[in-house]
Amino acid sequence: MSTSDTRVRELIITPIAFHDPPLLNSNGVHEPLALRIVLQLVLEDGTVGLGESPGGTARLDRLQAAAKVVVGMDVFDTTAVAAAIDSALLPTVPSSHERGWTTSAVEVACLDAQGKLLGRPVVDLLGGAVRDSVPFAAYLFYKWAEHPALDGRPAVRDEWGEALDPDGIVAQARLMQERYGFRSFKLKGGVFPPDEEIAAIKALAEAFPGQPLRLDPNTAWTVETSRYVARELDGALEYLEDPTKGIAGMAEVAGDSPMPLATNMCVIAWEHLRPAVEVNAIQVLLTDHHYWGGLRRTRELAAVCEAFGLTLSMHSNSHLGISLAAMTHVAAAIPNLDHSCDTHYPWNSADDVIVPGALELRDGEVGVPTGPGLGVELNHDVLERLHRLYVDSGMRDRDDTGYMRRIQPGYERRLPRW
Amino acid sequence: MSTSDTRVRELIITPIAFHDPPLLNSNGVHEPLALRIVLQLVLEDGTVGLGESPGGTARLDRLQAAAKVVVGMDVFDTTAVAAAIDSALLPTVPSSHERGWTTSAVEVACLDAQGKLLGRPVVDLLGGAVRDSVPFAAYLFYKWAEHPALDGRPAVRDEWGEALDPDGIVAQARLMQERYGFRSFKLKGGVFPPDEEIAAIKALAEAFPGQPLRLDPNTAWTVETSRYVARELDGALEYLEDPTKGIAGMAEVAGDSPMPLATNMCVIAWEHLRPAVEVNAIQVLLTDHHYWGGLRRTRELAAVCEAFGLTLSMHSNSHLGISLAAMTHVAAAIPNLDHSCDTHYPWNSADDVIVPGALELRDGEVGVPTGPGLGVELNHDVLERLHRLYVDSGMRDRDDTGYMRRIQPGYERRLPRW
Repeated sequence: MSTSDTRVRELIITPIAFHDPPLLNSNGVHEPLALRIVLQLVLEDGTVGLGESPGGTARLDRLQAAAKVVVGMDVFDTTAVAAAIDSALLPTVPSSHERGWTTSAVEVACLDAQGKLLGRPVVDLLGGAVRDSVPFAAYLFYKWAEHPALDGRPAVRDEWGEALDPDGIVAQARLMQERYGFRSFKLKGGVFPPDEEIAAIKALAEAFPGQPLRLDPNTAWTVETSRYVARELDGALEYLEDPTKGIAGMAEVAGDSPMPLATNMCVIAWEHLRPAVEVNAIQVLLTDHHYWGGLRRTRELAAVCEAFGLTLSMHSNSHLGISLAAMTHVAAAIPNLDHSCDTHYPWNSADDVIVPGALELRDGEVGVPTGPGLGVELNHDVLERLHRLYVDSGMRDRDDTGYMRRIQPGYERRLPRW
Repeated sequence: MSTSDTRVRELIITPIAFHDPPLLNSNGVHEPLALRIVLQLVLEDGTVGLGESPGGTARLDRLQAAAKVVVGMDVFDTTAVAAAIDSALLPTVPSSHERGWTTSAVEVACLDAQGKLLGRPVVDLLGGAVRDSVPFAAYLFYKWAEHPALDGRPAVRDEWGEALDPDGIVAQARLMQERYGFRSFKLKGGVFPPDEEIAAIKALAEAFPGQPLRLDPNTAWTVETSRYVARELDGALEYLEDPTKGIAGMAEVAGDSPMPLATNMCVIAWEHLRPAVEVNAIQVLLTDHHYWGGLRRTRELAAVCEAFGLTLSMHSNSHLGISLAAMTHVAAAIPNLDHSCDTHYPWNSADDVIVPGALELRDGEVGVPTGPGLGVELNHDVLERLHRLYVDSGMRDRDDTGYMRRIQPGYERRLPRW
C-alpha cells in the first residue's frame, strides 16, 4: 500500500442545525435547533472519513484551523495529527479540554477513513468488539409540550408531550421503553426543587423496579443539598451525577454519599484525573470521546479507570448518527464499560445525516455496525438541508439560558440554585 | 474482507535456546544459553503473525494452553483473545502478572498478523509513529571474560571481554558506543558492594559527560543502603532503578532520594499502579509489553503514566529480534516515552531468529521497520537450529543462581545483600 494514497487531501467542515425539543436543564431549555458540525476527511485516494462535533462558533473556527493543519498528513498517524492540531490551537486555546473537542473529531474521521481503507470496522482498530451491541440508558428530560410561538414563528410541538412532574417523567420513560426497549434510565435534573426531583426518581423506581436509575442536576446543588438528596435516594440510584461543582465539592459529597458519584463536568481533561483520584471525588467517570481525544484515547481513559478503581459510563450531548456510531464502536471495544451509555439520539434521530439502517436502538442497545470504518454513510441531501437550516437560522451558538429568558423573562441562571 | 479469512487456524509454539555471555546480576550469572519461545500464529488464509516470549517450563505450558484457546478466534479480536486466554489460565495461575506474559505474546502475534493482512506496519495500528526511530540505552553488565569450562564443556569466550571494575565497565561502554552509537547507559548493579558500583557510575559520568546514566541493582539493597547510594550519586543518575524491594520500601527511599526511582519489579501488573502512586513509590515506570498485556495495553499504560505524572522508560530481558521489533513499534507510537529504552540485543543478536536487515542499532537508535506487521521475517533455518539447541541442551528453566553455585560453590542468593 503506497503511503501517498493515505495522505489527507482535504478536511471539509460543514456546520448544521437540526430540530430539538424543549428539554429543560439547569441552564434553561434546549432551543428549537441544536448545532453540530460534520467532518468529511478526504484522502488523496478519494476515501472519505466521517466525524461529528458539537457546534458553535469557537468549535467551528478551531476545526477550520485544524483543516489547514491536517492536509498532507498520513491518516494512520492519528497521534501526530492530534499533536499537530493541538500545537496549532495552543496559543489561542489554553484549555486542553477545549482543544480536545477539535482533536477528537478529527481522530474519529481518521479512524473511519482507516477502516474504510482496510475493510474493517472501527471497533477492530480498537482491539475488537467484546460485545456485539452496546447498552444505552433512556435519557429522560423535564420538558414542555412545545416550543412556544416566538418572533412570529408558530409553536412547535413534538411527539413526546409535556413532562413537568413525576407522572410526566414516568410516562416519558414508559414511551422510551416501549419504543426502544431501554432497561436503564437517566433523569436530567437541576430543573425543579430537589424534593420534586427526588419524587420523580422514587416514582421511576416504583414504575421500573430493579432497573438502574441515575439523576444528573448539572451542579445545580450546594454540597449540603447534594448530601440531602443522596441520603433521600439511598438505594434508588445506580449513581448520582454532578450534584455539585468542582472536584473539591464532589469530594465533600462523596465522603458520606450512599451511592457512587459520577461526572462529566469536573473531570474533563487528563490533568483532572490525578487530583480527582487523590481526594476520591468521583467513583464513576462518564467518558466522552468528543473531548477526551477520540476513540483510542477513550480506550486509554478506560484503562486509567480500571487501574484506579473508577467505573466507566458514557456522556452524551445532542447528537446524530456519526457520533452514535463512534460511541458504539468504542463502547463495544472497552471491557470495563460498567454502565449503560447516555444518548440523546431518540430526541434527534428524525433529522439524522446518515443513511438509515446502520444504527438501530432495540432492546435498549445499538448493534455495532459491521461495515468498514464507522459503518455509516452520509446522506448528502440531508446534510445539505441541515446546513441550509444552519445558514438560514442565523443561530451560531447554543444559549439555553438566553432562550429561556425570552420565554420567561425573570429566569436567571444560578449554579448552585438550591 | 470475509471474517473467516482472519480466524486463527493454529498457534505454533517453538521453544528455543541461544548463546548468552556470562553477565552478572544480583541473582548470580547468566547461563551459557538463554531461553525464549517463538510464536507463529497461523490464520485460516495462511497469514502468519510472529511473537516472542521469555522461555521456561511454566511459560511454555501456558502458551501451549493458550494455543488451544485461540483456535477459531478472529485475529482482530485481541481484547477477547486476551480475555479468553486469561480465563483459561486463571484457575491455575493466580498472578495476573504471570498470566500477562502469555496474553502479551499472543497479542503481539495477532497485531503482526493484522498488519500483514492490512499491509500496514504495526505502529500504524497503535496510532502511528511519533518518531521514526527509537532511542535505546547501552545495557552494561559486570561480566566474566568467559563461561568457565564445566562438565567436560570447554570454556566459552565472547567478544566483550571481562568487566569487573570501573575501568572494565567504562571500556565496555566505549565498545558499546563505538559499535552502536548509544548515547545513554544503564549499568546492571547489585553484583559488587555498593561503593564499587558507585565508583563505576562516577567513572562513567566522567567518561561520558552529560549522557544519561542509570543503575539497577535489582533490589540488592536495604532501604538504608539505597538511601546512601542515592545520596552518593546525586547529580550522576537519570534515575535509580529498583534499589530495594517492594512498593513500601521504594516509597521510603523515594522520600528523600535526589533522583527519580524507577521500577520493573514492584509495579508489574495493573493492580500495582494505584498503591504505588498513592505513596509516590516510583517516578519512572519501565514498561514491558511482554507482561503488561501487549502493545495496545502498553499504550494504555503510557496514558496512565501521563495522567499520574510518572515518566516512562522500557524494560528488557535477554531477547531476539521479534521482541526488538515489537518494542520499537510500540515505543515509536508513544508520545510520552521520556527515556531511552533498555535492550539486551547487542549481547544476543548474533543468534537472531529473524532475517537480517530489518533492525539495526545505529546512533543508539533502532529505525521503525516499515514493512507490514512487525516488519521482520522468521529465519526458519535459524529457528530450527535454536530449537535443536534447546532440545539438546536439556535446559528448561533459567537459573542464574544455580549456575553461579556450580562455579562458585559458596555463592548464596541474598536479597537484600547489602
